[in-house]
Amino acid sequence: MSLREDGAAALEWCARYLEQVGEFPVLAQVEPGDVRRRLPPSPPEHGEPFADVLRDLDEIIVPATTHWQSPRFFAYFANSAAEPGILAELIAATLNSVGFIWRTSPALTELEAHTLDWLAQLLGLPDGWHGHIEDTASVSTIAALAAAREATGGRVVVCSEEAHSSVERAARLLGLETRKVPLDEQFRMRSDRVDLDDAAALVATVGTTSSTSVDPVPELAALCEEAGVWLHVDAAYAGSSWVCPELRWSQAGVDCADSLVVNAHKWLFTPMDCSLLWTRKPEALRAAFSLVPEYLRTSDEAESLSDYGPALGRRFRSLKLWAVLRCYGREGLQARIREAIRLAELFEGWIRDEPGWELCAPRLFSVVCFRVPGADEDNESLLARVNGTGELFMSHTRLDDRYVLRLAIGSERTTEADVRRAWEVLKREAVGGKI
Amino acid sequence: MSLREDGAAALEWCARYLEQVGEFPVLAQVEPGDVRRRLPPSPPEHGEPFADVLRDLDEIIVPATTHWQSPRFFAYFANSAAEPGILAELIAATLNSVGFIWRTSPALTELEAHTLDWLAQLLGLPDGWHGHIEDTASVSTIAALAAAREATGGRVVVCSEEAHSSVERAARLLGLETRKVPLDEQFRMRSDRVDLDDAAALVATVGTTSSTSVDPVPELAALCEEAGVWLHVDAAYAGSSWVCPELRWSQAGVDCADSLVVNAHKWLFTPMDCSLLWTRKPEALRAAFSLVPEYLRTSDEAESLSDYGPALGRRFRSLKLWAVLRCYGREGLQARIREAIRLAELFEGWIRDEPGWELCAPRLFSVVCFRVPGADEDNESLLARVNGTGELFMSHTRLDDRYVLRLAIGSERTTEADVRRAWEVLKREAVGGKI
Repeated sequence: MSLREDGAAALEWCARYLEQVGEFPVLAQVEPGDVRRRLPPSPPEHGEPFADVLRDLDEIIVPATTHWQSPRFFAYFANSAAEPGILAELIAATLNSVGFIWRTSPALTELEAHTLDWLAQLLGLPDGWHGHIEDTASVSTIAALAAAREATGGRVVVCSEEAHSSVERAARLLGLETRKVPLDEQFRMRSDRVDLDDAAALVATVGTTSSTSVDPVPELAALCEEAGVWLHVDAAYAGSSWVCPELRWSQAGVDCADSLVVNAHKWLFTPMDCSLLWTRKPEALRAAFSLVPEYLRTSDEAESLSDYGPALGRRFRSLKLWAVLRCYGREGLQARIREAIRLAELFEGWIRDEPGWELCAPRLFSVVCFRVPGADEDNESLLARVNGTGELFMSHTRLDDRYVLRLAIGSERTTEADVRRAWEVLKREAVGGKI
Repeated sequence: MSLREDGAAALEWCARYLEQVGEFPVLAQVEPGDVRRRLPPSPPEHGEPFADVLRDLDEIIVPATTHWQSPRFFAYFANSAAEPGILAELIAATLNSVGFIWRTSPALTELEAHTLDWLAQLLGLPDGWHGHIEDTASVSTIAALAAAREATGGRVVVCSEEAHSSVERAARLLGLETRKVPLDEQFRMRSDRVDLDDAAALVATVGTTSSTSVDPVPELAALCEEAGVWLHVDAAYAGSSWVCPELRWSQAGVDCADSLVVNAHKWLFTPMDCSLLWTRKPEALRAAFSLVPEYLRTSDEAESLSDYGPALGRRFRSLKLWAVLRCYGREGLQARIREAIRLAELFEGWIRDEPGWELCAPRLFSVVCFRVPGADEDNESLLARVNGTGELFMSHTRLDDRYVLRLAIGSERTTEADVRRAWEVLKREAVGGKI
């Protein structure tokens, strides 16, 4: 194995993959078990050349991959891993730093804190918040709610019916009860129905997964303040939009949050996994997690970021975020966010203007929720046909107890032509299926 | 930005780094704040060339990095990220797959399950265990203990005084109490002092972090079986040694475990982060974690690995493990494990034979615990001087209430010359410090 030679082949593989990714079926067209059937049942006795791994990537892995990097990936929250971030992951793996404590990698610890401060500036967050990185919003939420439990002693987590499933998962893990608040007609938490009795935390969502609705954070913050309840804001998706000042309307009240999660791997062009957690009460996170065994005790006075979340080991996740911020700059991030929103507006207009299609929720960011009138089954089968073409991949949700299609735009590779093609495929399949 | 051109520069940077890493001071010789002072206080307005990121890696990041890839990194559990694993991380970032559920990346889901089955064969584990990957042993332990709580209803986690700190952290997160069992003279859990009253789980350690001691798993398994208590085995470090059949003495009783964690990023040459969790009761993990929101409901009958742990999002971690298993084979892994143990035995012999030095625990795997006779402060200052030379990096622990030095061997880059040099530095600094 030679890192230079095999690395050049791997790099060429990656460059070609990204050039061709728009031509692959976006949703993997395989059946469960297809991959495992093609892999040898036992590991090799002797080492094989890395070239064989690359060959199997082409023959086994790529055909069974749903292509998140495709410009016509419109499911869930579409994202994309930008090239500076991809190369930074190569470098992070080469360094293989482990950030238990400051001294095990000062650069890892300080770049993580620094990059989060940079991003707080880009997003217009209050000064002085403490930021660090977890792998996913699920784990960021666990960390925030553990701090809330520690700080308040409450036993209930309050959130809306449209909060992300990770909130209920986190509450269950922490032994807390979840209390769900009903929604208004725009899928926002009804602040007049909030009951904070015995609450540890209220989780407000800015950009829910179903419809990107925005809970009324200013009113919820006032309720939390009065009741002494921890306010956690889940802006995993929509928080990235705050890099554009004209989009900061959805940030109202967030300055009163006790903790805030924004996923850089969702809409900040950073490869998985990079979930950013800020708090204005870092001492509560430390109280929930800090536990220093003898073999990690040092006389350093520097902080350890592992004191702020469940995992002791941390890899060098900030490197990819730093590389993206460096190579794109504020301007580059803003341009990409604005373009995604412009494309979503365009698509929204087509749906609005086309007879036989209806919008199902306000389009606030880069996600459009829509359906064809009629039965859920009609929409479900339309989605199956569209995804079956391989030309694009979309996902669905339920709103007002109806099956709803979602077109989510977030990849920097998505162009107007890609969105137009999605619309053509949708119309074609709707007619073909006689809807 | 061009992935081909900037990528070639990044790859060359990585190749040179690995060629030179043995020449850098192993422990970063910087003070807290040194990195942040050298970084601009604000992010750039406009994008910068990737070459500027590479320049700052050389000028700011590398000088503040503790070099885990150095052949003379002997601290904690020494590890190394092998080149096939490094290149696989480049590819994983390029694919940017997210494995919420099977259909979002069939290849990710199936390769993860398949690679864990391969590794179960390599380690000689029982057939049919369910395996998946978490980021760190901390999170694997959280998953296992959450399943134990779900399966048993118990409120106490029992472990030895030498169990990893992540066990107590996980218990605290889960709202469980920790009950610590005293040790025998070889730092093993005393099975005659185990009290399983109201216990959800007993965590037995095979290869403790301080001294690599091995708890008496067969006896503990019998106690757990009788009491209906979940047995979790933490073999995060030592489990990798089972790839060598002659080292499977420490696997006795592990076939009765309900769950088992082995960290591939510790001693299986896989880059951070790659913690492997097996269980023979997958339904208990699913009961603890599964919660499928509408937007992830599909008609697929394939399993979702996110049902087995705290995080919903999962990146393509199995790719690097697969690449290492492919390119090293059983034979290559065995050779590296055996060499690490041979080097540790050699060092152990030098300590044993040298007047004025003493061994402090049995050497079972690739870690040697030792000290110079006298006060803790003498050993502490010896360690500070040794690490201050930059020639190697070691860490410490406490055993029998004495400050003890640890030499941990685990990097595939470590040669006999490196271990010999460590010993020369230790002797020189001991004399220089007049110990």
